This record gives sequence, structure tokens and C-alpha cells, in this order.
Amino acid sequence: MISLADFGSFHVGGRRVLISGKPTETLHFTGATSFENDPNGAYHIEQAYVQYFIPAERKHDLPVLLVHGGGMTGANWETTPDGRTGWLHRFLEAGFATYVIDNVERGRAGWCALPDQWEGAPVMRSEEQAWVLFRFGTLEGFSSGKTFEGSQFPVEALGNFAKQFVPRWTTTTDIMRQGVIAALERIGPCAVICHSQGGDLTLETIARRPDLVRHVVALEPSGFPDPANAVDPGTQHWLFMMGDFIEANPFWVDLMERTQTAADGLTALGADASLLHLPKQDVLGNSHMLMMDRNSDRIADLTIDWLAQRL
Amino acid sequence: MISLADFGSFHVGGRRVLISGKPTETLHFTGATSFENDPNGAYHIEQAYVQYFIPAERKHDLPVLLVHGGGMTGANWETTPDGRTGWLHRFLEAGFATYVIDNVERGRAGWCALPDQWEGAPVMRSEEQAWVLFRFGTLEGFSSGKTFEGSQFPVEALGNFAKQFVPRWTTTTDIMRQGVIAALERIGPCAVICHSQGGDLTLETIARRPDLVRHVVALEPSGFPDPANAVDPGTQHWLFMMGDFIEANPFWVDLMERTQTAADGLTALGADASLLHLPKQDVLGNSHMLMMDRNSDRIADLTIDWLAQRL
Repeated sequence: MISLADFGSFHVGGRRVLISGKPTETLHFTGATSFENDPNGAYHIEQAYVQYFIPAERKHDLPVLLVHGGGMTGANWETTPDGRTGWLHRFLEAGFATYVIDNVERGRAGWCALPDQWEGAPVMRSEEQAWVLFRFGTLEGFSSGKTFEGSQFPVEALGNFAKQFVPRWTTTTDIMRQGVIAALERIGPCAVICHSQGGDLTLETIARRPDLVRHVVALEPSGFPDPANAVDPGTQHWLFMMGDFIEANPFWVDLMERTQTAADGLTALGADASLLHLPKQDVLGNSHMLMMDRNSDRIADLTIDWLAQRL
Repeated sequence: MISLADFGSFHVGGRRVLISGKPTETLHFTGATSFENDPNGAYHIEQAYVQYFIPAERKHDLPVLLVHGGGMTGANWETTPDGRTGWLHRFLEAGFATYVIDNVERGRAGWCALPDQWEGAPVMRSEEQAWVLFRFGTLEGFSSGKTFEGSQFPVEALGNFAKQFVPRWTTTTDIMRQGVIAALERIGPCAVICHSQGGDLTLETIARRPDLVRHVVALEPSGFPDPANAVDPGTQHWLFMMGDFIEANPFWVDLMERTQTAADGLTALGADASLLHLPKQDVLGNSHMLMMDRNSDRIADLTIDWLAQRL
């Protein structure tokens, strides 16, 4: 049982766009009388959505913000694809006020269908791409469902996992970074747990805003802070975490090297920064989706323990 | 404070699509090494997302499913745009296990960016369209923020409300109906509270599935059950609810007439069906967004009382 002092949601950030000079159009909304729609007017785009849960027995003053990765939404932190309770539960049970973002263009944040606003086309993720990129197994093993030996990903729920995928743009990085900043400024000082692209969207910002974020756990991030931009690195605490099977894919070998470089750069500036490569701690078999793997509770415990020791 | 025995989420329904014969493309995911993406493979589309909250002190066996309207998501039922607690809170406080859907193409359900799957283009809603269509005021009053006299909509939060809008298709009605059916079949017998397009997407289904839904509150629905398709109308209970300022817009005059016809048709077949036109009960000033209006708690109480009397 979880008792909540409060919970709810809000949208933050984005901008108001004025459209003019377009012809009216006849819309047939389902079941209703058709009507003449004037597409000219004011629209809100590029906002982020945040859902929050404040436990009744709050054990820490500092809230936690959970930031999903690319092509994902805040649903990543809820029930796992195979039906276990997710990280959102773990953080609430540990007594953290917990905020979950759907960043710009994802989930309840909405996305921009207005013409001429965003460049490029949205991309969807196939099961095969997830299988290989998230290190469940080799492409050859996909059709038979043969994962890497010892994989912790609940492969029987691959279909449920794929239902969580949402389209993404590859051109909206700066817009999504603004979404994170708007959320951080609204929430106030907090600890950030970010995953994959969520790292790329938050870590550089975090290094520049020690007033808003002192503690960071970056789960297999795809981007990194530039230590040269760190405003007050000695006050910040950074844990980078990587799972298993890194060597199976050059994409991850590269990211692992860059993660180590980022951690080393921050350490050299006086920050508390380290890379936890889980297999070196005998935590084996983790895919890129650490928060959904069968040992997701154990990884959550590692994260919460690291955080609690620094609060 | 709200104590929850459980909460979480799941995706249901939809279909697996196989794409083949497309060339590979180089993707530059933000911050990461570029990689060759093969767009061929298996994708999941047309699923719905459901977030659920089970109160620790459950007072009713029958769960409630909240179904948002067009261009909206489940966020409609959370914190109101002006920051008050929303209907989700009210139903939990009343002891209902409460399920909130993001239907197909909306919010965390995701949408289909694959080519050749959905017809037509997505439509976004301007502030002006919402202002007029949702009966906040006349188009002439929009720029000065002058609402209808006595309007209950928290007009100062119009910008926050507009941030909740998400793109919609006008061609996906049948797909979204399948999303509701998948959710109902997963949840099991429940009461349905549906709003606007959410009525169009659920009411016809409900009339055909008295095994799944016995109680319905349709808030200004844009579509109706065909009584001829009602499988066992005598076992079902229907409350249709309409707000104020109906006469300000022929669109609503038409829908009001059709709502009355639907209620009368169900009553003639032996169902407990009625139309509650709020102004006739001296509940004045309500816009189309009943669950966000300043008197949203009062409307929730009316809904919950009607429901509780029939459980």
C-alpha cells in the first residue's frame, strides 16, 4: 500500500504559435455535426507534461524527477511490460516525492502537427531495432526469441514493451532540453534519474544548473555534460550506470567510452562522479531497459542507496 | 491523503504491423553515434494506454473507467488547468477503483507514424476553436477574454488548458472504438464516465456489451448508442449530462436534441436513461469542460451520487 499526501499533473514550457492566412476547412468530428473550422489562431506547442506523486511519509526533502529515453514516455517507470511494479513504486516506497516527465513530443505532452514548425519526419522503432539496440540479443536470435545468455529482459513481454513505443523526431533536441529546464524550474531543486536520450536531454543542463540539480543517476545515457560547462562541479554528484553485453554492439562500446570520459572529466573538476558497470559488481544480464529487466528492483535499490547516501 | 492498494498502467489492443521492402537509413539519434537503421520489421500500433489507481478503502466492487474526449488525453481528469484536484481524486476519495484511458493516437497510447496506415492528416485545436466550441464565450469575446456571463470555466488558465491539447485524426473512429473494447475487456465489468468524443467511442459499444458496462455517465457526448443495437437495455443505466449556454451554438443545439433522442430511445426500451441539463437543476455556467469548470467538484458529486444510488 502507498499513501499519497498529494498527486496530480501539470504542463510546463513550450510556446504559443499564431497561425494566419490559412483557408477554413470542413471538419467531420466523429459522430457530430460537421462544422467549418478556421485553422488560424493560437496554438500551444512544445510543452512538457509532468505527473507527480507525493508520499504521505516523505523521508527526503529532495524530490526525484524520472526522465525517459528516446521514443518512450513516462510509462517506462510504471508497471513493467511483464506486469511487475516499476521504479515509480520503488521511489515512492523509499519516501521520495516523485515526478515523472513525458517530455515534448511524447505521451501526454503532445506533439506538433502544425506545418512548418519542426524539421524532418518522425521515426518509429521496430521490435527488431529495440531487440538489437537495447541488447536483448542478436538480430539473428530475434525471430526465435533467443536472447543473450543470461539476459534479464522479460522477453515474453516484448509485445507489451513495443506498445510503449511512441514516434520521435531526431531534430527536436534543443526543444526537448527546454522542456526539461521548464520542468526543473517548476519542480525546484531535485535529483534527476535519466535514461538513454533522457541523459542527452538533461545532463548538459544539469552541469549548468547546480542550483536545480545536485544528484544525478544517468542510466546508459546517450549524451553527456561538457565538463567545461559545469558551473560548480564540486557540489554535484553523478552516477553513470551501464548494463551488460556492451561489447555486443559498437554503438554501446562507443557510448561506454564516452560515459567513462564524462565521469573522469567531472571527477577531475572535483565532482563526485563514477561509472558503475553493473557486471563488474556481479549484477549480470542487464539490457538497456534496466528499469524493466527482471532484476529491476535490485537496480532501483542500487540507485536509491547511492542517492540516500548523498542526501 | 489518498491511500492506494495498488496503481500502475498497461497497454491493450492494437495490432502488429510488418514493414518490408524499405531502404535502410542513417539515423542520428541525439548525442549518440549515428547508426544504420533498417525500417523494416515489426511495429505495434493502435494500442490504448490505461493508468489505474485502486484505493486502499474500496467502497464499491465496480471500477470506473474515465474516457477523455477528442484531441485530449487522460490528463483531463487530473489536476485542473487552474491547479485544483480533478475528478480522478474525487472518484478515488469516493472509494472507486479508477481507470483512466489514453485512447489510441493520444497521449501515452502513442500514434502511428508509419506510412500508409491511417488516412488523412492530424488536426490540432486552436485556443479560438476551444473557446467557441467548448462554450467559454463568443469568438468576438476571445481576444479580450470576455466569457459568457456566469461562465464557470477558469479562463485565466486557458493557456494551461491549451497545453493539454494533442493532435487527433478524424478517420480513426473505428480504431479508437477497438481501443475502448480492449480496455473494457481487460478491466472487466465497470462503470464508464465518458466525455465528448469519448461518448462517441464508447456508447455504441456499451449498448452492445451489458456484460461489461451497466452504468454510464455521458458528459456532453458527441455520439450515441443506437437503441436498436442495445442487447439488454433493461439492465443498463444511462445518465446524459449537458452544461449551460447550449443555445449559443447550433452545433450544441443539434447535439442536445440527439442526446434527448438517445435517452428517450433507451427509456422506451426499458433502460433507466435520463438527460440532466444542468441549468434546469440551477447548476449554472458550465462549459463543455465540466470536469475542469470551477464547480467541477459539484458536478463530480452529482455523477458519483447518481452512480452510488445504482450500485
